[in-house]
Amino acid sequence: MMFLADILSTVFERRYRPWGTEKPDDRPMETLVSDLIGATGEVSGVTMARQILSRYEVMVDAEKRDFFRFLATGLAVSASDVRAALELYDKGQSKASYRAFMEAVEPPRQELIRRLNQVPDATRLLVRMREDLLRLSRGDDALQALDLDFRHLFASWFNRGFLVLRPINWESPAQLLEKIIAYEAVHAIDSWDDLRRRLEPKDRRCFAFLHPVMPDEPLIFVEVALTKGIPGSVQHLLAEDRSVIEGEAADTAVFYSISNCQAGLAGISFGNSLIKQVAADLALELPGLKTFVTLSPIPGLTKWLEAEGIGYDPEDDERMRRLAARYLMTAKRKDGLPLDPVARFHLGNGALVHQVHAGADLSAKGQKQSAGVMVNYLYDLKKVTQNHERFASSRDIAASPEIRSLAAAVPEDALAVGA
Amino acid sequence: MMFLADILSTVFERRYRPWGTEKPDDRPMETLVSDLIGATGEVSGVTMARQILSRYEVMVDAEKRDFFRFLATGLAVSASDVRAALELYDKGQSKASYRAFMEAVEPPRQELIRRLNQVPDATRLLVRMREDLLRLSRGDDALQALDLDFRHLFASWFNRGFLVLRPINWESPAQLLEKIIAYEAVHAIDSWDDLRRRLEPKDRRCFAFLHPVMPDEPLIFVEVALTKGIPGSVQHLLAEDRSVIEGEAADTAVFYSISNCQAGLAGISFGNSLIKQVAADLALELPGLKTFVTLSPIPGLTKWLEAEGIGYDPEDDERMRRLAARYLMTAKRKDGLPLDPVARFHLGNGALVHQVHAGADLSAKGQKQSAGVMVNYLYDLKKVTQNHERFASSRDIAASPEIRSLAAAVPEDALAVGA
Amino acid sequence: MMFLADILSTVFERRYRPWGTEKPDDRPMETLVSDLIGATGEVSGVTMARQILSRYEVMVDAEKRDFFRFLATGLAVSASDVRAALELYDKGQSKASYRAFMEAVEPPRQELIRRLNQVPDATRLLVRMREDLLRLSRGDDALQALDLDFRHLFASWFNRGFLVLRPINWESPAQLLEKIIAYEAVHAIDSWDDLRRRLEPKDRRCFAFLHPVMPDEPLIFVEVALTKGIPGSVQHLLAEDRSVIEGEAADTAVFYSISNCQAGLAGISFGNSLIKQVAADLALELPGLKTFVTLSPIPGLTKWLEAEGIGYDPEDDERMRRLAARYLMTAKRKDGLPLDPVARFHLGNGALVHQVHAGADLSAKGQKQSAGVMVNYLYDLKKVTQNHERFASSRDIAASPEIRSLAAAVPEDALAVGA
Amino acid sequence: MMFLADILSTVFERRYRPWGTEKPDDRPMETLVSDLIGATGEVSGVTMARQILSRYEVMVDAEKRDFFRFLATGLAVSASDVRAALELYDKGQSKASYRAFMEAVEPPRQELIRRLNQVPDATRLLVRMREDLLRLSRGDDALQALDLDFRHLFASWFNRGFLVLRPINWESPAQLLEKIIAYEAVHAIDSWDDLRRRLEPKDRRCFAFLHPVMPDEPLIFVEVALTKGIPGSVQHLLAEDRSVIEGEAADTAVFYSISNCQAGLAGISFGNSLIKQVAADLALELPGLKTFVTLSPIPGLTKWLEAEGIGYDPEDDERMRRLAARYLMTAKRKDGLPLDPVARFHLGNGALVHQVHAGADLSAKGQKQSAGVMVNYLYDLKKVTQNHERFASSRDIAASPEIRSLAAAVPEDALAVGA
Repeated sequence: MMFLADILSTVFERRYRPWGTEKPDDRPMETLVSDLIGATGEVSGVTMARQILSRYEVMVDAEKRDFFRFLATGLAVSASDVRAALELYDKGQSKASYRAFMEAVEPPRQELIRRLNQVPDATRLLVRMREDLLRLSRGDDALQALDLDFRHLFASWFNRGFLVLRPINWESPAQLLEKIIAYEAVHAIDSWDDLRRRLEPKDRRCFAFLHPVMPDEPLIFVEVALTKGIPGSVQHLLAEDRSVIEGEAADTAVFYSISNCQAGLAGISFGNSLIKQVAADLALELPGLKTFVTLSPIPGLTKWLEAEGIGYDPEDDERMRRLAARYLMTAKRKDGLPLDPVARFHLGNGALVHQVHAGADLSAKGQKQSAGVMVNYLYDLKKVTQNHERFASSRDIAASPEIRSLAAAVPEDALAVGA
Repeated sequence: MMFLADILSTVFERRYRPWGTEKPDDRPMETLVSDLIGATGEVSGVTMARQILSRYEVMVDAEKRDFFRFLATGLAVSASDVRAALELYDKGQSKASYRAFMEAVEPPRQELIRRLNQVPDATRLLVRMREDLLRLSRGDDALQALDLDFRHLFASWFNRGFLVLRPINWESPAQLLEKIIAYEAVHAIDSWDDLRRRLEPKDRRCFAFLHPVMPDEPLIFVEVALTKGIPGSVQHLLAEDRSVIEGEAADTAVFYSISNCQAGLAGISFGNSLIKQVAADLALELPGLKTFVTLSPIPGLTKWLEAEGIGYDPEDDERMRRLAARYLMTAKRKDGLPLDPVARFHLGNGALVHQVHAGADLSAKGQKQSAGVMVNYLYDLKKVTQNHERFASSRDIAASPEIRSLAAAVPEDALAVGA
Repeated sequence: MMFLADILSTVFERRYRPWGTEKPDDRPMETLVSDLIGATGEVSGVTMARQILSRYEVMVDAEKRDFFRFLATGLAVSASDVRAALELYDKGQSKASYRAFMEAVEPPRQELIRRLNQVPDATRLLVRMREDLLRLSRGDDALQALDLDFRHLFASWFNRGFLVLRPINWESPAQLLEKIIAYEAVHAIDSWDDLRRRLEPKDRRCFAFLHPVMPDEPLIFVEVALTKGIPGSVQHLLAEDRSVIEGEAADTAVFYSISNCQAGLAGISFGNSLIKQVAADLALELPGLKTFVTLSPIPGLTKWLEAEGIGYDPEDDERMRRLAARYLMTAKRKDGLPLDPVARFHLGNGALVHQVHAGADLSAKGQKQSAGVMVNYLYDLKKVTQNHERFASSRDIAASPEIRSLAAAVPEDALAVGA
Repeated sequence: MMFLADILSTVFERRYRPWGTEKPDDRPMETLVSDLIGATGEVSGVTMARQILSRYEVMVDAEKRDFFRFLATGLAVSASDVRAALELYDKGQSKASYRAFMEAVEPPRQELIRRLNQVPDATRLLVRMREDLLRLSRGDDALQALDLDFRHLFASWFNRGFLVLRPINWESPAQLLEKIIAYEAVHAIDSWDDLRRRLEPKDRRCFAFLHPVMPDEPLIFVEVALTKGIPGSVQHLLAEDRSVIEGEAADTAVFYSISNCQAGLAGISFGNSLIKQVAADLALELPGLKTFVTLSPIPGLTKWLEAEGIGYDPEDDERMRRLAARYLMTAKRKDGLPLDPVARFHLGNGALVHQVHAGADLSAKGQKQSAGVMVNYLYDLKKVTQNHERFASSRDIAASPEIRSLAAAVPEDALAVGA
């Protein structure tokens, strides 16, 4: 099993040799962009694309904002062109009229982005460009509209079918591992030794989705602990002095951390297939695994309790568990989906709310967001599709009997009294 | 330098494990398609996509045509929806109105194709699906319109930036090599021994563009001979008993065969950057290489001579060369581009017409299409951009003085007399 | 993981760059050899080793014989030196006396061979050198003694612990596959299509032992068919129109061809662990496999029958089977081991004689050597060690009851009558 | 190409599946060893080898010493057997008598070590075993004699021709990099960040020799800085805030650290070809490199000054340089070789003493061993063989005129006065 990064990185690294010499092209960015969109072949196209990307690289925010604004306004669809093409198309749907329609409805900036992408390693730069755009577009409706084009193209380019699931372990390149350290968003990794503790032992696994053109950049990764029984606290799970077990001895795979890595790919979803594919692969490798659960934070719990005026005492384990169950089962957004983002993610994936544990995350962050409570979402192989569908169609939250009874066990007045 | 195919094939080969058991879904194809487009998550999406692809795989042509027709008519854009969205967008260009516009103008079949592509290895199947579509859409305007959507997505997916240039040699997997044999379109490879003669000697090279998700499928490949001086005939170049030279001893790289491999990617261009990148790579590896030329067929020559009523004698070398030069320099399509497709390709790339050789291709095919005449197109590193631009803007055909004088040396009446 | 695997690629990359310029050294071979043995460092050593190897490469047989003779006589151990060292050692066994002893008893040609091996890719050349030596040493006792030194070193270099077991399949490099075609010694492979039929179907496997420094040279390989039940004929097994089954559907793995590849490694055994390791790997991959058997030729059968004056009729299946069983169970060499070389190999490995089939190999070779009879040797996982030990210690031949009764069922006079 | 490279991955994949079940064999170690040496095939051999290695793994030092002593005395050569074989051999040199001689002169423990090596991954364990032996054999002549057998076999197994030179960089596996941190013996690497500073910048390189059967274990590695001009201090070279240059801009490659990694391979030399091969590879990659030097410690300087009673003042740069030059040029061992071990190494390689720098290593270690002075040894491509030979034959130390005049510029009485 070869490591993708090494292979492909060489391919894209020093491989591309400019044809002839390239001097910086000093014409205005707008001119370069128009030229690139108008170019009839790749000959000068790739050169111009590289010019534009190089120049973008050294821009300060104000210049970037100008550049984006130019794309947003100067390279938008022309309503009149669309209207004309639509009229023809509506009259007679032919290949020619549909082609003209397609050309009219697509803003030139989409073609620009595709052409920029011809330059080797451009995809990575374009992802960073969108990261800038997302940052600079706050409160700017035109730039947010522009972002829809980036997102549209990225959803196509980062389609699940193009991604590769790879194990990340202590044999992975340092270059990739340092990104795991940097991107871990749930339980921070504070050193290479800490990282090693999550990768090297026989009862630890990590998997990432990678895209072949930027194989040293994880898109999303999940950390897994192989355990006997379902663990009830993350400090126990990550304890330095815990005893390591053989993978074959484990009956449970615990997904205890899932981190998205690329701000520039916000809104492009790959997480929902990650857990299921990892679970399927693990089940195949270790037939002893019977249970696939998460050990998840409940990021919105205390905020909700406070908003609802419900009193709570982090030391009162039993009440904390009831409140957490109640929150997960009943707190909803206006659209009827769970208020808790992590709950939305796993329930949307077809998991069910399985158990809640008080005192399960004693870190400052854990105390603050959920008074230390954590939750296990269970991925039950046989019910995941059915759960997903009921959740998708009628917002039904699947839960274990225990969770149901905990949630029910909070008398309304008890809530009030807590205020 | 690792071979891509081996790495990625494992990834996509047996990696994907279905989550739970999948039974064939017997509902009508239309229902499955609608469900897939409407699916809210990947959970059931991937399953449905796989169902659709599996069912497609076993369809006969009539069923495929029905399926395509459904996509063409049932999943087209709705002119009224576009009109409504356009009106709103025209009134106020906001993120919301633009999003609604984008949704209205894209036919649901594009989303369908993207969702089908979530299944591992689906890209390969979709390329084959388009191959079917191109075959079945002849004379069917609606299906040809549908093809525009496939082509639009494929142009994005097979963007130059996603492709990988790989040397093909005698160490390449047999699985890939048999495709080189199958796809060679210019000078047929008649056996594994013949293939070996084109790959193994030190003065022979072959390069292909591959896409990471179908790494055992070359998209286009070029065969190169390293020579001293510019060769004047293909039989000499491919002679079994020729003497092999060291790559370091060569001063010329001859691109003597370029073959597109995927009928399902027709119209998606990658060829124009292939030669230039290969030339640049070779120049770097072998600094002794000074000249980069093709040894190309002239597929339209005899047909043109006959259409023009110009007599020719394949044995009369000098007159054949003049007629070929005249043809290449003057025979045009209505749009002003050269009549000869190979000339269009290389001139469009920035090459120039360098030399013509009579008796250069004595195969039956060569005799038939060009009375044995072949041509060298020269890729001059310093002039390729300029040539391309003059060709693109004013249809100017770059040519060597020799070719110019040959083309001029055919008196008009001589042409007539020849009739 | 890739890094570890990637390591080898450099070996064959013509990576080694001579330090400074190397001119051919015209001094006599004997001088070069003496210099190399006497060199104090690698600096000039590698250069001289390369000189010697290059010069050897272009020698004709007479020159090679002279070279070998020089090694055999000029670089042998000195009996008087050994005697002196032995005396000292015998007086006082110290580090110093033992070191002097070791130096005295090893002929300088062993150090020569080791030093030649410092040149990258030299191992391959040395294997070929021994191939020459074996050929040229027939009837020459001194050269055969020299061969003992080669063999001694090769046994150490090609130790089982240094070999790698690799699957060979249709994704393997053409360069390796052509060697499989060339080396197949049991059932000839007559074309690339024939090869493909043995590698590509889901119910066919092939494995080879390779050495890391010559990874494109199989040392030994085995071809495996996955079947339902034990096959009784090779023509059936290799039939072009047979129906392919899924690997998971098979209950039996049939080792139907084992070929040694390197004449220069004659006498260095790796075959006995090959089958067992392949069986163990297959058992792990396909738990449905319950039976591991060979389908083997009986190369000495007809020769023995004729030598014994036993008549036989290839059409009389039942008698042929009895004679074959009798031959396998009773025909012995003077040392008590089975007369049949294939039987010696598998019984020595711990297999047992399981079944015999008449009309099982209808090829000319099969008819000639065994009147078409073939045999299955069974590798029974639980008994292989015990079988091996009984065979090794008391020459006991393990066999199935059926074979025993067949062997017993040939009345002595019937044998006589047959004469 | 990939296939060839991929070969190794299996080695470490825990691929080896025991044939049948292995129970611990409780017989005495001596019995197991005798059985292994006497085994007639690999069948039980590998099993016994594994038993012995597993048991060794858990031994304490006293048990290991007993085990070694058994090998040293119980498995030594028999002087009487040798004498008998020698007599026969001396009478008539035949294949048979030579074979008998070879068998008699090789102690059975060599065959034992080779057989232990049949177990996958055993080589690594045997290297560790020798590490133990070296430690436990101090002052024990019999064990030191035993070590000669290990060393003899290891010299053959770790022959230069079997080693692979690999770049080590920030894309290398963490598992390998942590060993670079651990093994760096010259200028300690104190963290992953420090390591990164030595690997990642464009003007830094690192190369290691690896053996294919233990590819995650560097045998020796060298760290290289690419610079403009020859650097005069290591603190400058390793400064965190130095400015990085492009590799193409460098004219000098500085080998500033060379570390042997495997205590168990002591005395097996690979270092002398490492620098030269790395220099040759770099020269090819970066034609701008004209100078190849070391920046080396002078570990014996202050000790020698003190032994000689020569006074020195670390602050007096000029005198320190003279004393260092004098030391390097004149201080000798009894065998006429330089007293300084680093000087012996590089001069033996054909380098020359080029420059000395005071205040060049301000670390505590540098101050202590050489009062901060360092030296550049120059590898001049055209003179390296000649230098080596003159050094090897007549102990001539090659040096630059500057060094010669510095060394000469210390009046004898000045030395005395310094006392």
